Amino acid sequence: MKVLAEIITIGDEILIGQITDTNSQWISKKLNEIGIHVSHKTSVGDSESDIKEALRLAKDRADVIIVTGGLGPTKDDITKKTVCGFFDTSLVLDEGTLEHIKDMFEKKGRTITDLNRNQALIPKNCTPIHNEFGTAPGMWFEEKSKAYAFMPGVPYEMKTMVNDFLSKKLQQTFKTPKIFHRTARTIGIAESNLAIKLDGFEASLPENYKLAYLPKLGAVRLRLSATGNTILEEEFQNYFDQLVANAGKYVFAKDDVDIELVIGDILRSQSKTLAIAESCTGGTVSGKITSIPGASDYFLGSVVSYSNDAKVQLLGVNKSTIQEFGAVSENTAMEMAENVRKKFNSDFGLSTTGIAGPGGGSEQKPVGTVWVGYSDSKKTIAKKLTLAGNRKLNIELTHLSLMKLFWRNLKSCHKA
Amino acid sequence: MKVLAEIITIGDEILIGQITDTNSQWISKKLNEIGIHVSHKTSVGDSESDIKEALRLAKDRADVIIVTGGLGPTKDDITKKTVCGFFDTSLVLDEGTLEHIKDMFEKKGRTITDLNRNQALIPKNCTPIHNEFGTAPGMWFEEKSKAYAFMPGVPYEMKTMVNDFLSKKLQQTFKTPKIFHRTARTIGIAESNLAIKLDGFEASLPENYKLAYLPKLGAVRLRLSATGNTILEEEFQNYFDQLVANAGKYVFAKDDVDIELVIGDILRSQSKTLAIAESCTGGTVSGKITSIPGASDYFLGSVVSYSNDAKVQLLGVNKSTIQEFGAVSENTAMEMAENVRKKFNSDFGLSTTGIAGPGGGSEQKPVGTVWVGYSDSKKTIAKKLTLAGNRKLNIELTHLSLMKLFWRNLKSCHKA
Repeated sequence: MKVLAEIITIGDEILIGQITDTNSQWISKKLNEIGIHVSHKTSVGDSESDIKEALRLAKDRADVIIVTGGLGPTKDDITKKTVCGFFDTSLVLDEGTLEHIKDMFEKKGRTITDLNRNQALIPKNCTPIHNEFGTAPGMWFEEKSKAYAFMPGVPYEMKTMVNDFLSKKLQQTFKTPKIFHRTARTIGIAESNLAIKLDGFEASLPENYKLAYLPKLGAVRLRLSATGNTILEEEFQNYFDQLVANAGKYVFAKDDVDIELVIGDILRSQSKTLAIAESCTGGTVSGKITSIPGASDYFLGSVVSYSNDAKVQLLGVNKSTIQEFGAVSENTAMEMAENVRKKFNSDFGLSTTGIAGPGGGSEQKPVGTVWVGYSDSKKTIAKKLTLAGNRKLNIELTHLSLMKLFWRNLKSCHKA
Repeated sequence: MKVLAEIITIGDEILIGQITDTNSQWISKKLNEIGIHVSHKTSVGDSESDIKEALRLAKDRADVIIVTGGLGPTKDDITKKTVCGFFDTSLVLDEGTLEHIKDMFEKKGRTITDLNRNQALIPKNCTPIHNEFGTAPGMWFEEKSKAYAFMPGVPYEMKTMVNDFLSKKLQQTFKTPKIFHRTARTIGIAESNLAIKLDGFEASLPENYKLAYLPKLGAVRLRLSATGNTILEEEFQNYFDQLVANAGKYVFAKDDVDIELVIGDILRSQSKTLAIAESCTGGTVSGKITSIPGASDYFLGSVVSYSNDAKVQLLGVNKSTIQEFGAVSENTAMEMAENVRKKFNSDFGLSTTGIAGPGGGSEQKPVGTVWVGYSDSKKTIAKKLTLAGNRKLNIELTHLSLMKLFWRNLKSCHKA
């Protein structure tokens, strides 16, 4: 039997367009992974009657109803009251939740208010869902073979609840068909070319298999999935290996992990170190490298040389190089990568220099002109990019191109 | 009379979480600006019965029904067929649309297919909405004092239709009340405490006013809104000023802008410069500072000193300081902030050093122990944080605390 779900997001801020609802997308993906099919999504405002109507409709057409938002301490949050009305129950104090709230306030050295204390009140017939990072607990209900989960709208609070509690609980409650998913990540090839490469493979897949192309910022995820109780894990792995073999040298990971993690693993396994000189990316590359736990094993540090003075004084780029070729040039990018490597005494040096926009462009070097550099003990190279995005996008694309350049060189070192 | 709208987005790719629906947020904002209140958003898959049910529900509770998606040339797009059923009409060829489609193909040098030609078929009783950038026309219906607009899901096609046609058409069709919105941003005060501070103000608001608290990562947005033809802009501004006065010193912006922008504006107006020494934030602070266009006016650069060696050699932190107090200490944070200021010859220096986690913690200095530092020509200080999030969250919160520390000091310099 197909298990259907409906996601209800609550909040005036969604309806007036002040925030993008990313929660419902994230939840959809999670449910999809455990074989639960989202058939509807609904957003309503902070209105008791609208919330009730949404719940009533959802109950009639779905088996699982997941609600986010409307659980904060202030008075525009009326979800809990509405829920009591809907399930015809009343609020009781949950001691465990109260302890947790007190604990959180104690750790922060803040005084607890009545508003906070009230967050420990939950409907009588629900199971509280622990909120590791916040004071509003989630609520789980089962009634007439339907399941309901209410969670706060704060993304990291909600996500932790889904990962730690909801996914497992739903799998236990509903016996969902087995779904296998595995993602390979590629870089350096466009979706349409990848599709041509994988045409034959796709045609060979059994009916219960599906290959999805998920492009994002020029890099394409390949997600293979298969549904059905009869699938052998071995068979699925076999098809996945074929997928990876067909996609060839563009695959940087056989799991849904970022390239910074893959790079970090290679560096760690080789006991090699990295330093970075950033100009137009302004710290973003280093920030992404250090977003990986344990990055201190291989990342020594960076110099963000936003001004020309900093490039010369902190990185030792030749003044004449900047005068002759400009700060955005192959020579500057190469000197930056090489010098930062020497400065930090690291095995590898990377660099970025360019015009992210919207200002700073010229006819000769328009916005989007960027150089990324790579240096190891044997060679130093730089690559030119011509980007056409806005500031934010240009920074992201520069980062990605630099990672691609680094990964390819690491791989060939690795093999050598 | 309040004009209510419902937005329906169609597409399996939304329900399985493959894409984020940003269309409905954008449309919400646009409708809000012309005084139309979105009361519901619904997403359904490419299923005729689900689309029909969604239209039926929407018709009963809204005056304006806006539908996006399901209008492309491929076969999973069944919206047009469903629409004919819903309005009990049939498809006819629209000559104007056909001309436009032929034109587009000619310009691209492509051959037109039957699939493309079929896109010029539209329901008999609708007004086609011109699609400047695509081949699928939009459709406008009026029936029983309700208005319906169907548009493609491709964001730039849809947006052009709204800007060029729909906004005006809706304003002509419905005589909408005026809506005022303004957001103030606060930092350094919890939602619950802010609610206590603003209790009296909130109680004094006329019935057509609404105050919303929008918390995110410990910083709270305050959004005041008011509806009705009788509101004078002056009256609304007056209430907004009262809101800001009541929220007091925690308000860093009277518009919905980020604190990095506010800080940048202050620095630029004073011709002051900034340099940053980052350890646990690994480049994230610099990345956010440089995400603001024109940051090169005041931001000179950073040193990301992830290793102790880098702290000593690149930033000149005393070896003995690290040995005696540790890299995560008040003294190290202060030396980092002061030395980076001197190194870059900037007016202000900032620093972060801490244990973001998940590894690296000890009993004395558990994960989440962080120091942020501030230095100007007259003083150097550091502040201890005790964070309880995961790695990513701890980095974000460290950044935010540092911005708070910097902004407060900038403000007091500014006044002096």
